[in-house]
Amino acid sequence: MRRFPLTPALRMYYRRKAVYKMENKQFDSSLARPLTSSLEWSSFKLNADGMIPVIVQDDQNDEVLMLAYMNGEAWQKTLETGLMTYYSRSRNELWVKGLTSGHFQYVRSLKIDCDRDTILARVIQVGAACHTGNRSCFYTELA
Amino acid sequence: MRRFPLTPALRMYYRRKAVYKMENKQFDSSLARPLTSSLEWSSFKLNADGMIPVIVQDDQNDEVLMLAYMNGEAWQKTLETGLMTYYSRSRNELWVKGLTSGHFQYVRSLKIDCDRDTILARVIQVGAACHTGNRSCFYTELA
Repeated sequence: MRRFPLTPALRMYYRRKAVYKMENKQFDSSLARPLTSSLEWSSFKLNADGMIPVIVQDDQNDEVLMLAYMNGEAWQKTLETGLMTYYSRSRNELWVKGLTSGHFQYVRSLKIDCDRDTILARVIQVGAACHTGNRSCFYTELA
Repeated sequence: MRRFPLTPALRMYYRRKAVYKMENKQFDSSLARPLTSSLEWSSFKLNADGMIPVIVQDDQNDEVLMLAYMNGEAWQKTLETGLMTYYSRSRNELWVKGLTSGHFQYVRSLKIDCDRDTILARVIQVGAACHTGNRSCFYTELA
């Protein structure tokens, strides 16, 4: 609650700030919380590339958004920041989802399957999960 | 609707048949329908093992049940039968889900992601998807 009247100049300042924030899809630090995992990375079963596939599910409507891969570094970074971080197999580098697009994925929960070779992450998805602009990467129907 | 009265013997026969069906988790052929895919297997991007990961989602409550892998043969078999069929990497053989456990997965829909390297299947799951008896393989919470 503001305790002073807004001058036209101040009003303009706040509006510009809000628009800037929206346009730049600024990071909401209150949603990104560090996590502690009940199991170590070393207890997971990795694929031939030393990575683990991660199914990403929308925490709000249960939609499956994408599948990506984590290596140990991406896993640690995800826990430390509370932001989904993957290993990009095409670019061969760590990939903080949303860092360039603003479409961050705030981690809500993480689970591992019975074989300990797949992670299921529930996230708050900002904007679109898919680089095509679709909310989910699974927009192509086969059958 | 039966148009004749049930004798005690007939009643017993029908009850035994129903119990047998339940106990043996018999296959419900009306749920397994052949499918035609809008895209060929050859247009998918396979992993190093020539396979594609498949996310399996419960069509009734959107729960993510498991992740498994298909090769070309498993894909064709899935389309032909309407029953989720995978390639078992541990047993090195085709694996019609439910054939030994009765826990069939009737295909409801199939989608492919933007990179064409992951399939999302929505299924009617009989019983438990997980060999541990859990409905979903993702019952272990990490964070």
